[in-house]
Amino acid sequence: MRVTIRKIAKDLQLAVSTVSKALSDSYEISAETKRRVLEYAEKLDYVPNLYASKLKQRKSGNIAVVLPEVADSFFSAAINGIESIAQTKGYHVIVYLTHEDLKKEEYILRDFRGGRVDGVLMSVSAGADRNGAIHDLCAKKFPLVFFDRACEGVEAAKVLTDDFESGYKATQHLLSKGCKKIAFLGTSENLEIINLRRLGYEKALTDAGIKLRKEFILHCNNSEEASYSIIHKMLCAKNRPDGIVGSIEKLTTLSYTICYDLRLKIARDVKIIGFSSLPFASLLNPSLTTITQPAFEMGRTAATLLFNILENKKNEVPNQQIILPSSLMERSSTRK
Amino acid sequence: MRVTIRKIAKDLQLAVSTVSKALSDSYEISAETKRRVLEYAEKLDYVPNLYASKLKQRKSGNIAVVLPEVADSFFSAAINGIESIAQTKGYHVIVYLTHEDLKKEEYILRDFRGGRVDGVLMSVSAGADRNGAIHDLCAKKFPLVFFDRACEGVEAAKVLTDDFESGYKATQHLLSKGCKKIAFLGTSENLEIINLRRLGYEKALTDAGIKLRKEFILHCNNSEEASYSIIHKMLCAKNRPDGIVGSIEKLTTLSYTICYDLRLKIARDVKIIGFSSLPFASLLNPSLTTITQPAFEMGRTAATLLFNILENKKNEVPNQQIILPSSLMERSSTRK
Repeated sequence: MRVTIRKIAKDLQLAVSTVSKALSDSYEISAETKRRVLEYAEKLDYVPNLYASKLKQRKSGNIAVVLPEVADSFFSAAINGIESIAQTKGYHVIVYLTHEDLKKEEYILRDFRGGRVDGVLMSVSAGADRNGAIHDLCAKKFPLVFFDRACEGVEAAKVLTDDFESGYKATQHLLSKGCKKIAFLGTSENLEIINLRRLGYEKALTDAGIKLRKEFILHCNNSEEASYSIIHKMLCAKNRPDGIVGSIEKLTTLSYTICYDLRLKIARDVKIIGFSSLPFASLLNPSLTTITQPAFEMGRTAATLLFNILENKKNEVPNQQIILPSSLMERSSTRK
Repeated sequence: MRVTIRKIAKDLQLAVSTVSKALSDSYEISAETKRRVLEYAEKLDYVPNLYASKLKQRKSGNIAVVLPEVADSFFSAAINGIESIAQTKGYHVIVYLTHEDLKKEEYILRDFRGGRVDGVLMSVSAGADRNGAIHDLCAKKFPLVFFDRACEGVEAAKVLTDDFESGYKATQHLLSKGCKKIAFLGTSENLEIINLRRLGYEKALTDAGIKLRKEFILHCNNSEEASYSIIHKMLCAKNRPDGIVGSIEKLTTLSYTICYDLRLKIARDVKIIGFSSLPFASLLNPSLTTITQPAFEMGRTAATLLFNILENKKNEVPNQQIILPSSLMERSSTRK
């Protein structure tokens, strides 16, 4: 049976309100009564009913992390960064996965308005036609910080990395290794960070006097099978690329598999650079040259911003934007 | 401003209790009034206060998944399996990470008693000296299902894999490839599944007439640096092993790094087999022979069991135990 305040009151022959006040350390209650109540509550292993007690404070003690997935090295490292801050604040981190499904994202966000969490750290799903849940939360000044993938057109705090510059740098790296025909692997859906990486790629080619080729800018989607055949087709073509910029980890590792299947030698036949925080990029065959985002640090910074907002009594959301730079880690997949 | 039942009642000139009953579809309220209330609530974009409304039903609509980490391929795949079931039940999956910290695990579990979640799917942290939170939850018949890593001595539903047999099979595979000196990489802490894998390893060696050697059974811990030096030392020794069974993904990939650093050729000098659900085990250099657990299926099955418990009105926990077999995927790291 659940131990309630009512039971404690009855057993100690006190009023329910007295027990309740004693448990919340009210000045109205004598030290002696508080001691009796607390000792007895401990003896019975009393746990306050969360929903009842939090209702009063309007605080859940939770922050939510809303992500597309955890099977990506960036996100799993970012969660660790977020936890490192939340732990010091005594908050629980709750992880919600959208699986790049806008409807699911919408459903999760709508639910937050009911008081489930005090604040949200979010990396949006890919896709256009997003409806209003994010805008609604922001309009209601709900504490929200975007990290890595922000929602376009929404004013909120953001922790990003230099996606345009990284796309430029990755492409320049392939050019410096002698590539002439460089492809870009992106997603089919609207996702600002992927667009920025692609714009960086395009600028680097244009700056090098190389004409952009439509057939080298791929729009893969969330299905592995479909992405496989899109990339496979490009690599089978007579005029196939000699360099690949993979803007998403999964597309990069998929390109490895396809090169294996086609018996193309990575580095010699096709050089590959990918955006990834994979801890064992160096163990791949060949080791993968990466644009490595500061994933842990981005999580840490986003959580710090969120707690700044939560601790600000006016509860105003400062639309601060912090950019942390990524770094290029040269390995064997792009060697000359 | 937050839309409340009070506001709806005032605007529609109804009693608060009438609005509340209309919103919960009570038979006491006429269809016409219900329609009026629902239409107006929708117009105002009314969201029920979660804590208030759930308090009555004692249902949070959440299930918790408590895991050591998400940076392991097993866990990220298992989460997807869990979500595939929870979604059909209209439940939210909340992910809590313990980072193999028993105190954190304890803290999370204690908090569940307050009504934050309706049920728990759990893979325990490594470590002895676990205190009573798990036992308390089970004693209170809190809906709980263990998957992969169960807590010893606790009666609860469990979804496991054949760890003993897999340890045996992995070792036998190395023996069949000509290994004579096989090491086992385990954890320093108590973790039943690792113990079972080690017992399987020991049995396979004994059955093959090979004497167990203490120096080949390593107890690595959670720190990567410490684990590095323990494995490094063994592989530097004059009488180093010619085969390794990695019982944890991180120790297996770490062994790769150490072999690289020592210029030992994996497969020729040391054959490696590891427990892993890594989607790109085949992209490693050399591709990794794995014992692959049915991670997605284990998550799915555990979630199905949990919902069986939740939907059982007597709320009794059947101490069912389901074992799903792992499979050996032969790749280059163990070739002759």
